[in-house]
Amino acid sequence: MLKGIAASDGIVCGQVYRLVEPNLTVQQRAITNLDYELNRFHQALEAAVSDVETIKTRATKNLGTDSAQVFSAHIAMLQDPELITAVETQIRQRKINAEAALAAVAQTYEASFQDLTDNPYMQERITDLHDVTKRVTAHLLQVALPDLALVNHPVIVVTHDLIPSDTVSVNPRYILGFVTDLGGRTSHSSILARSMAIPAVVGTQHATDQLTNGEMVILNGTRGQVMVDPDDDELASAQAAMHERAANLKRLSRLRHHGTVSRDGVGVTLAANIGTANDLPSVLQNGAEAIGLMRTEFLYMDADQLPSEDDQFATYKRVLTAMAPRPVVIRTLDIGGDKPLPYLKQKPETNPFMGARAIRQSLTHQQIFRSQLRALLRASAFGNLRIMFPMIATLDEFRQAKAIYDDERSKLTVAQVPMGSIKIGMMVEVPAAALLADRFAQEVDFMSIGTNDLIGYTMAADRTNQDVAYLYQPYHPAILRLVNRVIAAAHGAGIPVAMCGEMAGDPIAVPLLLGMGLDEFSMGAGSILKTRRLIGQLSAHDLQALVETTLNQASTSQEVITMVQAAVPGILT
Amino acid sequence: MLKGIAASDGIVCGQVYRLVEPNLTVQQRAITNLDYELNRFHQALEAAVSDVETIKTRATKNLGTDSAQVFSAHIAMLQDPELITAVETQIRQRKINAEAALAAVAQTYEASFQDLTDNPYMQERITDLHDVTKRVTAHLLQVALPDLALVNHPVIVVTHDLIPSDTVSVNPRYILGFVTDLGGRTSHSSILARSMAIPAVVGTQHATDQLTNGEMVILNGTRGQVMVDPDDDELASAQAAMHERAANLKRLSRLRHHGTVSRDGVGVTLAANIGTANDLPSVLQNGAEAIGLMRTEFLYMDADQLPSEDDQFATYKRVLTAMAPRPVVIRTLDIGGDKPLPYLKQKPETNPFMGARAIRQSLTHQQIFRSQLRALLRASAFGNLRIMFPMIATLDEFRQAKAIYDDERSKLTVAQVPMGSIKIGMMVEVPAAALLADRFAQEVDFMSIGTNDLIGYTMAADRTNQDVAYLYQPYHPAILRLVNRVIAAAHGAGIPVAMCGEMAGDPIAVPLLLGMGLDEFSMGAGSILKTRRLIGQLSAHDLQALVETTLNQASTSQEVITMVQAAVPGILT
Repeated sequence: MLKGIAASDGIVCGQVYRLVEPNLTVQQRAITNLDYELNRFHQALEAAVSDVETIKTRATKNLGTDSAQVFSAHIAMLQDPELITAVETQIRQRKINAEAALAAVAQTYEASFQDLTDNPYMQERITDLHDVTKRVTAHLLQVALPDLALVNHPVIVVTHDLIPSDTVSVNPRYILGFVTDLGGRTSHSSILARSMAIPAVVGTQHATDQLTNGEMVILNGTRGQVMVDPDDDELASAQAAMHERAANLKRLSRLRHHGTVSRDGVGVTLAANIGTANDLPSVLQNGAEAIGLMRTEFLYMDADQLPSEDDQFATYKRVLTAMAPRPVVIRTLDIGGDKPLPYLKQKPETNPFMGARAIRQSLTHQQIFRSQLRALLRASAFGNLRIMFPMIATLDEFRQAKAIYDDERSKLTVAQVPMGSIKIGMMVEVPAAALLADRFAQEVDFMSIGTNDLIGYTMAADRTNQDVAYLYQPYHPAILRLVNRVIAAAHGAGIPVAMCGEMAGDPIAVPLLLGMGLDEFSMGAGSILKTRRLIGQLSAHDLQALVETTLNQASTSQEVITMVQAAVPGILT
Repeated sequence: MLKGIAASDGIVCGQVYRLVEPNLTVQQRAITNLDYELNRFHQALEAAVSDVETIKTRATKNLGTDSAQVFSAHIAMLQDPELITAVETQIRQRKINAEAALAAVAQTYEASFQDLTDNPYMQERITDLHDVTKRVTAHLLQVALPDLALVNHPVIVVTHDLIPSDTVSVNPRYILGFVTDLGGRTSHSSILARSMAIPAVVGTQHATDQLTNGEMVILNGTRGQVMVDPDDDELASAQAAMHERAANLKRLSRLRHHGTVSRDGVGVTLAANIGTANDLPSVLQNGAEAIGLMRTEFLYMDADQLPSEDDQFATYKRVLTAMAPRPVVIRTLDIGGDKPLPYLKQKPETNPFMGARAIRQSLTHQQIFRSQLRALLRASAFGNLRIMFPMIATLDEFRQAKAIYDDERSKLTVAQVPMGSIKIGMMVEVPAAALLADRFAQEVDFMSIGTNDLIGYTMAADRTNQDVAYLYQPYHPAILRLVNRVIAAAHGAGIPVAMCGEMAGDPIAVPLLLGMGLDEFSMGAGSILKTRRLIGQLSAHDLQALVETTLNQASTSQEVITMVQAAVPGILT
């Protein structure tokens, strides 16, 4: 039994697929049979082309033709007569094995490219060359180069850490679950898994060492356990759980095209949180009525340098187009502090959560902020865009950010760039902003309560610190009072208010939030249908009394849970 | 002009006194004139005895006979015939200089003591030997060994960093100001300077390198500047500022034995914050009506190991006795996080301010907590003790801490240890506690608002991080709303409420706090008389309208400042 952190709910059983880079070290050998070696090389080339064709097909389907173009470039390189001849010549003249010949040629190519390091096109060619060389070498060494796009039957993916690009070309039907060595409940791996509604256990530390390809395991994403080599009874019970889950998902899927309405007729919006455009299929499959939070950090973190305005524009446009006419709330960059960018050379901070992050960083590094705002403004022509500023603590900050936005908008207006109308809002995640929500509500178009950070600051507890994790209490009456205050303040000023933290999809919190009058619940796409069903069973009006009781009489989180369970019997597990 | 951080108000001019350890490296030399060398040794011994006599007199006066005993031990060692003979023998037999002879003897002594490392008495003797050797060596090398107790005319002390023990035996009349290389506005140096009401500039980085002994400087503790080599006009204007300050202090000192009553007859308590028992003289001189916060970290941080229960008892008893019958609020240990103890081997945290500190640490390291509680319980027989738990975020934490206290109290009751009645309260410094103050007020005897941390968490800004220091806003309307909420909640439950952060002595904040009905203002002793005068000029009743306006209409800190200045014209500068 491997233990880890429960990152995404559900029980699944299946075979292990290790997504671990193999050792591709090449030894040079003298060869005697030239024809045999040349034949080996050509077979490896063909196998590599076949792999890349498969990956390209999958990427085209998942991501569209544009994103799949990189794979066409790989195929072209694998078929490039100049490259092939160069390797053949090395094999013939130096009488060395194909792997070593390929490595030598790749090195020569790379050296010639290196002189052009300020040319982005040539930089991309170097990356392509690495990928292609790696793939051919793997075939020559007869070791598997794992790639989720090549998976053609259901597996449990075991990897060191999961990054968004790993999942780009995956067929979600074949991924039963994820197990990772690293990560916590709020790490990127976990957020990805939940957004794809795939069971996951993260932070096992040793999974990639201890699990072997093809081994049968039972993954329990609710308990954070991976059972190795289960017996027949255990397998049968896991399979029963899987079937029940599948049947449940199927029942839930009938709600996909429904609106979200409480039993007593109060309509709310259920929206999805996304990290990249790759989450769109899951958002649409799960019937999200909006995107309530698109994080833009991945755009910056997956790259070696700042993304260009055009790259950003393309991503925002793609998301807005896919969702139109539904609204898409895009949060400006929340870097700094806990999410440093290596190429920005930020200085280390003693308490990065309370440091120069998010809007604080954007207001001091205005070039980055302005570039993002221009990309957003240009993309606004293609859908229903709302821009949200993170970590606002004072009205001065909001006003400064808004003034910079207005400035960029004016310039683009003069340049006659087509733009849509955009609402400008704020995250409410700093306690000061929540406490002063009535004043902020006079100046913003909408608010979105970011509970992950709001809870952290209000409880003075770093949620990523295991020693104080017990203090990260979403149902603490202090948190409920703050949330209720923000909702009342927004409605007092006639503006809508959303919540985009984990709390919005939490079955204990949902009845309280509905009773408080929250307009929009934004969550990982995988939680939307469950939440829609739950809200359909609740009466918003009846829950107001529960809200009053918890706000005025509860002293602890446990009392709140007890009160909710008493008021909404049977629904919650 | 040297720039630093304004740490304690006031302008002073005077000569530099560098409190910097000199280089005391000893070179062995062959000597020819034995009598001359023996004579040198005896003269150095006499000079050292004279130094230590002076220091002892000063320490006896400031700290009492007990604390000065260490210096008697030093004198005894300087006059120890065995030691003297040993050094003389070395000089005679090896024909080496006195410094080298002393060093050799000290090394032999130390080696013989080292075998007894688990004997605390012998450990103290080693420390004494070091001190004594250092002092005699300094006289032999004819370099000054600076010590504040030896200062006999007014100087500006320039040092790398100021620690509480530096100021133990100082005559405050001779210390015009402090300049340090290290530290920030809330570092220990700054807190010490403010508690002694001595102007200070900290964090200059280079002061000890750039200033020389005897050099004339003007220190501006309000602006954080040190002017080197001022001209006559500058000196004259600095002297005028000093005289005005002195006259002002003299006028203020008439308020020393007065109570604190507003113009319309509302009485409040002005209390002092202290870090060690050494702050007591200043507390009494400034007419504090109570100690509103005694920090206990210095007891732990100044030592190489955990202080014993008896050591703690002695300190608490001394403070309680000196203040009786006035109340003394002692805060249990706030270590962990930003104030790590090297001997506790705490693991590093990504965000220590939001980590396992204060009560969180006490509840997991119960041995340390229980030892402190026993020392406090035993000391309670000697005065009017109130115990306060820091960083309370949930009622569960308060209940756990209280239960441990009750347990220790029961055990001491069984053992028939005399104890006084003790009130048990909490710091309100975590936003969650402030938001839920009405519930907490049902279970605690008193509350004290710790604004330093409360502001940090509420604004999500680390006050020690220069990049976000602008967000550390005590007058932010969100902070005022929280503070007002806590005061109302405490009074609703019929318990008293104090404030022990920097804000309690801030002239912009005082009218607001008086208007809100705060019962006790606890601050650095140096601010007490000024605040007493200010409160005497204010009408608590009239200020309620100001409070209403700031709470309901102010959106920014600047608006609050403007409103206060309009409502209380002329008083504030």
